[in-house]
Amino acid sequence: MEKNERIRPRTLSGFMELLPPDQQKMERFMETLRKSYSLYGFTPLDTPIIESAPVLLAKGGGETEKQIYRFTKGESDLALRFDLTVPLAKYVALNYANLSFPFRRYQIGKVYRGERAQRGRFREFYQADIDVIGDGALDITNEAEIPSIICRTFTELGLNRFVIRVNNRRILNGFYAILGLSAKSGDIMRTVDKLDKIGEDKVREILTGEELALTAEQADEILRFIAIRGTTAEVLTALEGWRGKNELFDQGLDELRAVTEYLPEFGVPEENFAVDLTIARGLDYYTGTVYETTVTDYPEIGSVCSGGRYDDLAGYYTDKKLPGVGISIGLTRLFYVLSEQGLLSDEIVTAPADAIVIPMTDDLAFAVKTATILRNAGVRTQLYTEKKKFKSRMSYAGKLNFPFAVLIGEDEIAAGAVALKNLATGEQTALPPEAAARVILEEVSRRNSGAVITGKKERPPCPEG
Amino acid sequence: MEKNERIRPRTLSGFMELLPPDQQKMERFMETLRKSYSLYGFTPLDTPIIESAPVLLAKGGGETEKQIYRFTKGESDLALRFDLTVPLAKYVALNYANLSFPFRRYQIGKVYRGERAQRGRFREFYQADIDVIGDGALDITNEAEIPSIICRTFTELGLNRFVIRVNNRRILNGFYAILGLSAKSGDIMRTVDKLDKIGEDKVREILTGEELALTAEQADEILRFIAIRGTTAEVLTALEGWRGKNELFDQGLDELRAVTEYLPEFGVPEENFAVDLTIARGLDYYTGTVYETTVTDYPEIGSVCSGGRYDDLAGYYTDKKLPGVGISIGLTRLFYVLSEQGLLSDEIVTAPADAIVIPMTDDLAFAVKTATILRNAGVRTQLYTEKKKFKSRMSYAGKLNFPFAVLIGEDEIAAGAVALKNLATGEQTALPPEAAARVILEEVSRRNSGAVITGKKERPPCPEG
Repeated sequence: MEKNERIRPRTLSGFMELLPPDQQKMERFMETLRKSYSLYGFTPLDTPIIESAPVLLAKGGGETEKQIYRFTKGESDLALRFDLTVPLAKYVALNYANLSFPFRRYQIGKVYRGERAQRGRFREFYQADIDVIGDGALDITNEAEIPSIICRTFTELGLNRFVIRVNNRRILNGFYAILGLSAKSGDIMRTVDKLDKIGEDKVREILTGEELALTAEQADEILRFIAIRGTTAEVLTALEGWRGKNELFDQGLDELRAVTEYLPEFGVPEENFAVDLTIARGLDYYTGTVYETTVTDYPEIGSVCSGGRYDDLAGYYTDKKLPGVGISIGLTRLFYVLSEQGLLSDEIVTAPADAIVIPMTDDLAFAVKTATILRNAGVRTQLYTEKKKFKSRMSYAGKLNFPFAVLIGEDEIAAGAVALKNLATGEQTALPPEAAARVILEEVSRRNSGAVITGKKERPPCPEG
Repeated sequence: MEKNERIRPRTLSGFMELLPPDQQKMERFMETLRKSYSLYGFTPLDTPIIESAPVLLAKGGGETEKQIYRFTKGESDLALRFDLTVPLAKYVALNYANLSFPFRRYQIGKVYRGERAQRGRFREFYQADIDVIGDGALDITNEAEIPSIICRTFTELGLNRFVIRVNNRRILNGFYAILGLSAKSGDIMRTVDKLDKIGEDKVREILTGEELALTAEQADEILRFIAIRGTTAEVLTALEGWRGKNELFDQGLDELRAVTEYLPEFGVPEENFAVDLTIARGLDYYTGTVYETTVTDYPEIGSVCSGGRYDDLAGYYTDKKLPGVGISIGLTRLFYVLSEQGLLSDEIVTAPADAIVIPMTDDLAFAVKTATILRNAGVRTQLYTEKKKFKSRMSYAGKLNFPFAVLIGEDEIAAGAVALKNLATGEQTALPPEAAARVILEEVSRRNSGAVITGKKERPPCPEG
């Protein structure tokens, strides 16, 4: 082909495409999430990336509608999914008769939003969601279990210093009702949300300003309310001060008590959990418990795992009342941010294989047989047979960071052994292939036993139960 | 929401969306493929589903072009990938400087083709590809290793009665050159390909007919050539009869010898392998060894794993010569066909979890603690706390096919034990939670030790080496 007929290869901006070592780390993230979600009895789900646009947008898109990839093919009006919640709603409504409730599913999949291109913003990104859907009702214990799932997942990933922040929308709505401010509660919460950024004085100024027009007493009570801090027990005690004034508030407080009651049995350490009355979650969608998760040393990342309780999953598809609770991890962004911060492990094996077999004779029979023995033993093995000088072969093995090279020359074939070289230490030993497999597996297992996110392991993995 | 505002939920035709038990089986397929590909030193790759249309279609689409999902977003001309090979070519050309060659990657991902909707035809489907890409050159041993990978993969999936059919394009092209029929070889191969369907007489009629106008001698020699059958050694001996007449043919024969030389060491049983001179693979793309894989008892399925050697992966993106060899499994179609034939295992656990913990007291502390102990031990555990009658709880456990129920009443709490009920046998035992975990793990591991595809296990898993 002539050079001028060539097209310059490129990947669209906003689309993550990793080099092999980083992709290996991403695979580890996904494997950890699959395993952790499965431990809590969530079944994997896979739905199409393309849906009928009228079906996908049944709820109305609002802010996101402009971002949606929508197009026609033949006579079909199509769209790419922009989250995993609407496809779940569709799936549950469509398969209602074939599912048993509570229906617990996890889904790790790509979603699409045509956002403005920007560093660290992705147009194609993985979400990793879990949801529990009830048929008509759903017990509060499902909400109590969520912090345990978040805790185990992030601890398994290697992140120990994080806080799961929990609130209850009924407490917030009830509180504003007590103050007679229900109509303004949305605007008030948006203002209060800026507390960390603009400070208490400025927040009071806005609350009592022309637009919101709260009394000084109302503003003070709001600021006193959201300033409630302390252990879970202390916050609950403080909240009891408002009990009896509003039914919704009381219900929310009961729910919050139920959510926190079994935290020790769920294996959630006190330091990974906090009741945080400033958490509201933007969506009107949530009706009860809401969750956010922040990384202690990197607050600027924002919440890495959020969600909550909702009362009506699929009202736009079905007349069945389907309440649920769910959380979502923005996996692509999480991976990107941790990678940028240099927080991903270099200890776990990211080579294409655990060992590279390098034959140094023309007859490959013993080398091939060795590769097969290693693979049968579970060693991920590459057989390297390119016609290259020894130095160039070893340089390849080094560049790709193989933990071990298995060298096979005439001496080795005569002895029925291999020269096993640990490429990290340079140590070399002569061993039969079966014994080499055991050495490789042990060292690789040691290296992979660490988490993918590095950080001080300050305490044993939670949940301990 | 009013009923008349509701949208009827539906999934587009040609898009596979499985119910949970089938999805669990699909996950098992994917896990098996990931593991098998990894054992041969292939690194996982993930590329965007959306690419720039001019980049994706650089090679020209031909037949497939009409099927491509192509659309604009803002000013971008976009398309969904229709295979995993073009994205690989793009990736390798783009990241050439950061990769080491041979570059071995696997990718399991969805691809899109807007085919005419038809039962068993999918518009969104998984392909599971492996490729080895060389820089300038690639040793023949890479081609010899492919049957071992196919053999291990299908054996691990549970399919024992399959044949990996191998041919070499140079042998075919050389043979037609010997007959002076190079210009007509494409048409001849397409005719010969119909042998099974239309029979030898009809094929001879077409070959000697007006359009192709071969002599009777030429037609006879072609039919004699493609009728060559037997063991690998017998076929190779027969092919030696044409040696020395054409350089390309001789090179192809040498390559075929090299590909078959180490089959025993690669652990490929004789009965799973055959040289088949009728295999050509439609694409002009392939230049050397070509592969197809057929299921002995279900020939109508066609090839379940195909591929071959090519000389120029990315000529439309780069002036680098990038030869390679690869195979692809059409996972969605394979899953669909096996499922239709009733060949998927009902023995492996497809429940959302291995055990369902059912508390029968108001205080949930012991039940929650038990669930945590089970999870810490690696038991996938669902905690069931809906306010339902016992019978309805057990019916839920039965419908979802949980292997075990863990029942916790006042007696159990007093004894610090659980009532472990095997839901398949009905057997019930009182055990401490830790001991229950061991029993559950052992039984679940036994059930999952079988393959996802059922079939008589007539011999030990290959490759044995």
